[in-house]
Amino acid sequence: MNRRDFAALLAGGLASAPAFAESLGSIARASVRMAPRVDGARLNRHLTELSRFGANPQGGVTRLAYSDADRQAREYVMGLMRDAALTPEIDAAGNIFAARPGRDRSRKPILFGSHIDSVPEGGNYDGNVGSMAAIEVAQSLGEQGIVTRHPLQVVIWQNEEGGLYGSRAVSGQLTAEELQNVSRSGKTIADGIAFLGGDPQRLASARRAKGDIAGYLELHIEQGGTLDRDHVDIGIVEGIVGIKQWEVTVTGFANHAGTTPMDERHDALLAAARFVDAVNKTVTSIPGRQVGTVGRMQAFPGAPNVIPGEVVCTLELRDLDAAKIDSLYASIAAKATRIGGDTGTTFSFRPLHENVPAPSDPRVRSLIADAARELGLSTRVMPSGAGHDAQAMAMIGPMGMIFVPSVGGISHAPKELSRPADITNGANVLMGALLRLDEVGWA
Amino acid sequence: MNRRDFAALLAGGLASAPAFAESLGSIARASVRMAPRVDGARLNRHLTELSRFGANPQGGVTRLAYSDADRQAREYVMGLMRDAALTPEIDAAGNIFAARPGRDRSRKPILFGSHIDSVPEGGNYDGNVGSMAAIEVAQSLGEQGIVTRHPLQVVIWQNEEGGLYGSRAVSGQLTAEELQNVSRSGKTIADGIAFLGGDPQRLASARRAKGDIAGYLELHIEQGGTLDRDHVDIGIVEGIVGIKQWEVTVTGFANHAGTTPMDERHDALLAAARFVDAVNKTVTSIPGRQVGTVGRMQAFPGAPNVIPGEVVCTLELRDLDAAKIDSLYASIAAKATRIGGDTGTTFSFRPLHENVPAPSDPRVRSLIADAARELGLSTRVMPSGAGHDAQAMAMIGPMGMIFVPSVGGISHAPKELSRPADITNGANVLMGALLRLDEVGWA
Repeated sequence: MNRRDFAALLAGGLASAPAFAESLGSIARASVRMAPRVDGARLNRHLTELSRFGANPQGGVTRLAYSDADRQAREYVMGLMRDAALTPEIDAAGNIFAARPGRDRSRKPILFGSHIDSVPEGGNYDGNVGSMAAIEVAQSLGEQGIVTRHPLQVVIWQNEEGGLYGSRAVSGQLTAEELQNVSRSGKTIADGIAFLGGDPQRLASARRAKGDIAGYLELHIEQGGTLDRDHVDIGIVEGIVGIKQWEVTVTGFANHAGTTPMDERHDALLAAARFVDAVNKTVTSIPGRQVGTVGRMQAFPGAPNVIPGEVVCTLELRDLDAAKIDSLYASIAAKATRIGGDTGTTFSFRPLHENVPAPSDPRVRSLIADAARELGLSTRVMPSGAGHDAQAMAMIGPMGMIFVPSVGGISHAPKELSRPADITNGANVLMGALLRLDEVGWA
Repeated sequence: MNRRDFAALLAGGLASAPAFAESLGSIARASVRMAPRVDGARLNRHLTELSRFGANPQGGVTRLAYSDADRQAREYVMGLMRDAALTPEIDAAGNIFAARPGRDRSRKPILFGSHIDSVPEGGNYDGNVGSMAAIEVAQSLGEQGIVTRHPLQVVIWQNEEGGLYGSRAVSGQLTAEELQNVSRSGKTIADGIAFLGGDPQRLASARRAKGDIAGYLELHIEQGGTLDRDHVDIGIVEGIVGIKQWEVTVTGFANHAGTTPMDERHDALLAAARFVDAVNKTVTSIPGRQVGTVGRMQAFPGAPNVIPGEVVCTLELRDLDAAKIDSLYASIAAKATRIGGDTGTTFSFRPLHENVPAPSDPRVRSLIADAARELGLSTRVMPSGAGHDAQAMAMIGPMGMIFVPSVGGISHAPKELSRPADITNGANVLMGALLRLDEVGWA
C-alpha cells in the first residue's frame, strides 16, 4: 500500500480516533501491504466440482433448496471448510456457519459468504462464486498465516432463491407463518430446514441482533450485463434495490369482435397495452437506474373473435430509493386512471410483494474500492437489481457487496457464465476488503 | 303499393325487360298490395317454446350442435313445419329443408331460414328468431291463401355456431378433412351429421350449384348494439364481412427484471403492447366500419420478476372489402416491424383463418328496403360483423339479410334480447321481401 492509497483508506473508512490508532497496528498493516492473494486455480476448481451437484444435461444446475442435490452439495462444502481449517456448524435455521477465531475475543465476528441453492435450470455461478470464494479466502488466510483481529465466520445461507429464508431467519424477519410456505422442492420451509439439519422449533437461537456482527461481505456475480459490456472488473454495490409488486386487473366488457364497432368497445386489452407502454415511459422519463416491468399478462376470455373483457397482469418497480418507487407508482396509477377513462375500463391494483431497499455501508464501499485499486482493478459503483442475503444482513451490521461480471448479462439459466479470471479478481477484492474491514472495524 | 313505391321497386330491383314484364303479373301484385302480415303473437310464442330446449338455469340456452337438446329442438321445429303445411326433410348434411310448392315448376326455389344451435351459455334469439320467423312466414302465406310463383324452402341449418357446417356443405365449401373436426358437443362433424339424421357419406347429394336457387333470405338479430341505440327498426345487411385472423408471435429475450437496465431490454410484452395500440390506431385512422381486435394474449415465461421473452397473441381484421383488410394488415405489419426495431424484438404472423367477404345482392337489398318502407319501418344499411349461413348461400344465389335490434348489443350470452315487436317487424319485412323477390325473381 503506498502513501496515497493509505490516506484514501483513512479518509474513506475511518470512523473514530481509536479506530485510527488501531489501524496502525503493525500486523494488519503488514498483511494489507503484502496484498495477499487467493489461489485462483483452486477456487475455480472447487466451483467446477460444486457444479456436479444437481447438474443438468444441458448444462447448469437444478439445485433447489431442500433437495437431495442441495444437501449433497452442502456436505461437499462442509468438507471444503474442514480442509480450510474451519469448523462448520448448522444453525437452527439450516445455514452453515464455519468459524475462524480472531486475535481479539471481544470483537464481534465478520461474516462473509453466499448461497449454493439454485433456481430450476439455473447456472453454475449465482451464489456459488461467493460461497467458494469465501472458503478460499479463509483457506488462503490460514495458509499465509494471517490471523485477523475479529473472529471470522464463513456462511452458506440456505434457500436464497426461494426468498432469502436463511438470512431472514438470522435477521429476525422470517415470520412463523412463512415456515409453512411450500418451497419449489415440494417441502415446507419448516420441513426443509429440518431436512438440512436445522431445527425449525428453535429458530430464535439463530437470530442475531443489530450490532451482533462487525460486518458482512458478499461476493456475487452481477447477473446483469453492464460490467461485462463496459469491461469493468468489479462492481461495488451501492445497495440492493427495493421491490414492489402489484397484481393489476383491467376490467372492460367482453363482446363480439365482429358486431361491436371500434367506438363502442370497452377493450380491457387495449387499456392494458397502453398501461404497459405508460409503465415503460414513466420509468424511463427520469434519470436513474430504476426499472419497471410488466412480466405477466393474460387476456380473458382469450378468443381471437372476442374483445377481451378482463386482463390480469403484474407490475414490478425496483429502485434503491423507496420514495422514488412510490412516486413512480403514483404517476403510473394516475396514468392508468386516465387510460381507463379513455377506454371505458377500470384498473385495480393489489399489492403482491414488497422488499425495502437495503443500502450498503458507505464505509465498506470505500474499503472495497481501496482493495480493488490496490489490485489494479477497475470499479463501478452500482445498485443490485436482484435481491441478496446481504439485504437481510444490512439490517444488523455494516454490509458490503462485490460484483464480478456476468458474460452477456445472462443469469438464472444454464448459459450463466463468469470468467475464471474475474472470479479470482473478485475473491482477491473480497480478501482485501475483509482485511481492511478487520483493520478499521467499527465493532 | 303506391305509384312511387312501385317505381322505386322497379328502379332498385329490376334486372331485365322480361323480368319487368313479369313483375306486372296481377296475382303477385295483388299480394304485395295487401301487405300480408305474420301472426306476431304466434311467432313469439313459438320462440318461447323453442327456448325450453337446452334452457340454462340462469337464462338463455346451451343448445350445442349435435347435442340431445339440439336434436329435441329440431323435432319441435319439424312439428311446427308440419303444422304450417310444410314437408320437412333432412338432407345428407343434416340440414332441415321444408318445401312449399310454387305455381311455376320451372322456377328455382327461394330459400329462407336460419339456425337453432347455440354457443355454450348462449341466448334465446341468435338463429332462433330467423328460424321461427321463416316458419311463421310460410304458415301465414298458407293461411292467407298466397301461392308463390317459385317453390319455397324453409331451411334450418345445422351447426352454424361451430363454423357454418350445414350451409357450407350445401355451397360445396366443406372439405372432407373438416368432417373429422371435433365439435363442442364432443362429436366429430361426421358423427354429428349422422346423429341428426344426415349421411356424411352422401354429402355430395346435399350440394347445390351456383344458380340452383332463386335467392336466399335470412332474418337475424343484429348482435351488435347500433340499431337499438339509434332506434332503427330494421338493418339491411350490405354484406357479411370478410375475416382474417393471424397468430402473432413477438420474440424478445427473457431476462432478470432486477438486473437488466431499461435500455438493455428486449421486452416482448412492451413490443406487443405497442402492437395492440398500433392495431387500434390503424383500424380507427380511416373512415368505415372495419374492426380490428387482439383477443388473445399471453406473455412467457410469465413471472412478475422476469422480462417477457415471448408473447403470443392474435390479430383479427374484419371488413366488407377484402382489399381494405389487406391494406390494413400491410399497414399493421409495417408498424410491427418498426416496433420490433425500436424494442429489439421480432414479429411473426401466422395466418389462422380466413372468410372472404360475402356481399348481399343489391337488388335484394332494395326489395328489403321497399318491404320495410311499406310497413313504415325505419332502416339502416349496415354490414354484418358476425358470420352467418347467408355468406355460404351468397355463393350460389342472390342473398339478402334482415337484422332486428339486439337490446344493448348483447349476444352469445343469456342476457341476449330482442323485443317481440321488433321480431314481428322483422318477420313482416321477411315476408314482404320474399313476395317481392318471388315477383321480380331472376331465376
